[in-house]
Amino acid sequence: ENRARLLISCPDKPGIVAAVTSFLYEQGANIVESNQYSTDPEGGTFFLRIEFDCPNIAARQQEIESAFRPIAESFHMDWRLRLHNDVKRIAIFVSKAEHCLLELLWQWQAGELIADIALVVSNHEYLKSTVESVGIPYFYIPVTKETKAEAEQKQIQLLKKYDVDTIVLARYMQILSPSFVAEFPGKIINIHHSFLPAFVGARPYERAYERGVKLIGATSHYVTDDLDEGPIIEQDVTRVDHRHHPDDLKRMGRIIEKTVLARALKWHLEDRVIIHKNKTIVFY
Amino acid sequence: ENRARLLISCPDKPGIVAAVTSFLYEQGANIVESNQYSTDPEGGTFFLRIEFDCPNIAARQQEIESAFRPIAESFHMDWRLRLHNDVKRIAIFVSKAEHCLLELLWQWQAGELIADIALVVSNHEYLKSTVESVGIPYFYIPVTKETKAEAEQKQIQLLKKYDVDTIVLARYMQILSPSFVAEFPGKIINIHHSFLPAFVGARPYERAYERGVKLIGATSHYVTDDLDEGPIIEQDVTRVDHRHHPDDLKRMGRIIEKTVLARALKWHLEDRVIIHKNKTIVFY
Amino acid sequence: ENRARLLISCPDKPGIVAAVTSFLYEQGANIVESNQYSTDPEGGTFFLRIEFDCPNIAARQQEIESAFRPIAESFHMDWRLRLHNDVKRIAIFVSKAEHCLLELLWQWQAGELIADIALVVSNHEYLKSTVESVGIPYFYIPVTKETKAEAEQKQIQLLKKYDVDTIVLARYMQILSPSFVAEFPGKIINIHHSFLPAFVGARPYERAYERGVKLIGATSHYVTDDLDEGPIIEQDVTRVDHRHHPDDLKRMGRIIEKTVLARALKWHLEDRVIIHKNKTIVFY
Amino acid sequence: ENRARLLISCPDKPGIVAAVTSFLYEQGANIVESNQYSTDPEGGTFFLRIEFDCPNIAARQQEIESAFRPIAESFHMDWRLRLHNDVKRIAIFVSKAEHCLLELLWQWQAGELIADIALVVSNHEYLKSTVESVGIPYFYIPVTKETKAEAEQKQIQLLKKYDVDTIVLARYMQILSPSFVAEFPGKIINIHHSFLPAFVGARPYERAYERGVKLIGATSHYVTDDLDEGPIIEQDVTRVDHRHHPDDLKRMGRIIEKTVLARALKWHLEDRVIIHKNKTIVFY
Repeated sequence: ENRARLLISCPDKPGIVAAVTSFLYEQGANIVESNQYSTDPEGGTFFLRIEFDCPNIAARQQEIESAFRPIAESFHMDWRLRLHNDVKRIAIFVSKAEHCLLELLWQWQAGELIADIALVVSNHEYLKSTVESVGIPYFYIPVTKETKAEAEQKQIQLLKKYDVDTIVLARYMQILSPSFVAEFPGKIINIHHSFLPAFVGARPYERAYERGVKLIGATSHYVTDDLDEGPIIEQDVTRVDHRHHPDDLKRMGRIIEKTVLARALKWHLEDRVIIHKNKTIVFY
Repeated sequence: ENRARLLISCPDKPGIVAAVTSFLYEQGANIVESNQYSTDPEGGTFFLRIEFDCPNIAARQQEIESAFRPIAESFHMDWRLRLHNDVKRIAIFVSKAEHCLLELLWQWQAGELIADIALVVSNHEYLKSTVESVGIPYFYIPVTKETKAEAEQKQIQLLKKYDVDTIVLARYMQILSPSFVAEFPGKIINIHHSFLPAFVGARPYERAYERGVKLIGATSHYVTDDLDEGPIIEQDVTRVDHRHHPDDLKRMGRIIEKTVLARALKWHLEDRVIIHKNKTIVFY
Repeated sequence: ENRARLLISCPDKPGIVAAVTSFLYEQGANIVESNQYSTDPEGGTFFLRIEFDCPNIAARQQEIESAFRPIAESFHMDWRLRLHNDVKRIAIFVSKAEHCLLELLWQWQAGELIADIALVVSNHEYLKSTVESVGIPYFYIPVTKETKAEAEQKQIQLLKKYDVDTIVLARYMQILSPSFVAEFPGKIINIHHSFLPAFVGARPYERAYERGVKLIGATSHYVTDDLDEGPIIEQDVTRVDHRHHPDDLKRMGRIIEKTVLARALKWHLEDRVIIHKNKTIVFY
Repeated sequence: ENRARLLISCPDKPGIVAAVTSFLYEQGANIVESNQYSTDPEGGTFFLRIEFDCPNIAARQQEIESAFRPIAESFHMDWRLRLHNDVKRIAIFVSKAEHCLLELLWQWQAGELIADIALVVSNHEYLKSTVESVGIPYFYIPVTKETKAEAEQKQIQLLKKYDVDTIVLARYMQILSPSFVAEFPGKIINIHHSFLPAFVGARPYERAYERGVKLIGATSHYVTDDLDEGPIIEQDVTRVDHRHHPDDLKRMGRIIEKTVLARALKWHLEDRVIIHKNKTIVFY
């Protein structure tokens, strides 16, 4: 179809929206959705996401980009034009817990997650048949302390071979090394099983139980070198009480984890999430 | 200060945003927030709310409006320019339940509701001292079947005398006549103590109890001639269970009612709510 | 294991709990969970659910039941003793929408729904391979106006042959006849895709869209002869806004539907739901 | 009236409920609500809260307590019998933020918080007239680093003079010294303006903003010597996004703070909260 989105960030100053929308009008585009945000109208950073219909957009993409370049330069814009049909290729990393993977597969089959799931990578063989039964390649790459560097090299090769844009850690129970993360900046989405910044690190449900919290949560965030410290995309919580043991919290938490991860990934795939410093702007 | 908002609705077609934002740029305005929505990019209705800073806006309002008129006409716009300092004057109607009134008064005193509360009108004397203690005039206008028409005439006179823009029914337990409503189209906000369209009409908590629902709610909406059928602005719910009798539901519901009404009123006062047919577009 | 639950309802009067817990103590039982509710301590109905551990309970069930009978009679109790290992056999009815079925299958595989899924019945062939791939028999029984009575006879025969205790309508898009419902009183659980009693009947999302509600919901209830009027077990909602078309509401609603149905079914399977008149008492 | 509640904790073993309920039955009591919880049926701690009606309870309290003592001793119970009419006396500590105080006053006036508000203590004069206008004594006790010990002595004298049972810190912006806390163990309830254990300590909204969380919350807990580490009674959250600055978070947070504090206090006043180690059991 003829839909595309223009993503812009630049220093805020008067006239940006006027320049961009006048340009789109001249190109024959019809805006269908527009979101903007400024960290500070005086000297802050301005973010704009415009979704528009434009006849023949696939054929005209290069021409439009060339015509836009002078405007972009005059406002010192970081920008991208993405066609709606230009679907992102993703890899899903899992360990043994299957609930997040299954939710993503279901939403993908139901047409709610628009992505090409290029491959699934796991440090266990456990979910191989589940994944292969829907026609997605499954790569079992075991990871030990000793083989971690080597395993990550294999993973990176696979991700390049399969031309992957986004990596989803769907309860992948291994910490990625800084060099791995550096290969995919702003491209790795994790689900952490707590309401960050509470319970950073291991065993969050056990620690939630010990602290006696009355709500538990989950957080989807971009992965950076600091464990569980990357930009948060989405969070949600559910109510618990004194009767719930850690196993209950895990069970109840799974529903939150899978829902939060699917929501965050959907927004990412639709280019609705912008990373700014250590936070996200989400145009949902 | 120099802040203003421009509110526009018109038939959707390419070029609207370009024309409006170019105009604002030429006037020296800096956009600080912008929201738009189209019921259908092909032939639907387009809605735009732009908040901007413009030096000396109060003095220049008329000049800017004149300059904008040709653009507005070419796109067949319904439009308004409102200064941020041009605060809406409101009247609050109450009966005996005070929770909604108290919440509005508190939020108003705390600077969260930006409005002039011109007067409070009640069919009971009950809350007179509460209201007068914060320096707001209180008018006790009893209403019976026989005196209703006359009472409404008194109310309308008062509302005109006090130059009231918006009427808030804060659990006012009288049904307004169609002729009253016709005087203030899209200007009367009610809080209904149920999750509409469930339990339209009287005794919603009792009926919620009888039906055995597991959530109760409240709905704030604009008043039209059809009881509880006007455009919904905001709704929320809270969880209940089999142990709760109607009195418990009423008690728990009060928290929802006052929160929902205050939220809806705040959006209305900031011109974030647009009525379109029997629904609202809320740019929050 | 040695766990069992005792479920009691009877006219409320002093001494019930004392009699029951003294009896259990004499039998060597250790209470692990106890819930009770009285519609009115003076002349109302009293409900009790006690979960207890008792050595050798499977072998001693009959003996304990005999010993309890005189107590039960003296208080005019309706009662049941159920062993924890005595898992309920269920049938899932589906049409084409698979989200509820998939969630139930996943929770069942993950050990969160303790049930024997005896069979799946559908008026479409669509989900046959999905269901058979996890080893559950799938029966395709097409239903037309003309064949409905006959189809229901086939269904009832299957349900009896498979010794089914509970029937789950997981978005089964056929209305069951009164004679079908009469065969399984209090045994059929439905998920309705609205926040009942709002939008009873067909096309709830479309009607929610037309009414302009700001929250949509789902309701799980027992099926009675009155469409969507049976005792409500569980409800939940999610926030929507003016941008969401009926297709969006359907998409967002699916998450609520499947979560609410799974929660209601779990409580039912654990004998935590008691039907009283047209309402439920849920001891969760 | 004739209502009372019996609160028990003791080592778990078979026969406790039987013994207690048989005793109550013999005393002519009719149980209206009963809640129990065991940390572990094998060797854990057992908690029981029974609400019952008993004719002439006020006159018979001592007699019933004497009769119960042998049972209590045989099970090594910690226990209390409290009459429903024996209303707790509370002190509210405030600084300048009034939202929590106003909510408590309103709920108290509306009959939703059953307590005697004996006095309000503040380190500012700011809310004096508000409090005195509803007939409650207000004590302005300024606190500086130098005068803190002395100020706390004055506070303790007042609390004793007014025979206060429970102290509510309704956004009181001073840290109580360990010696103050030691005077009222398990009797001081605080509202912390974050979702603990996230953002322990000062400036939680600013830190929530810096971290970019998507939900903010509030936590009501008992005060212990460890700042913000005491047993949590209740928590709740509300959704925020990238547009909200710290001032917005504070504004939105106030609604959560006052609601959570009022809920926690209500449960405490009804003896529904039991402190066990560093957690709470809440029988709501």
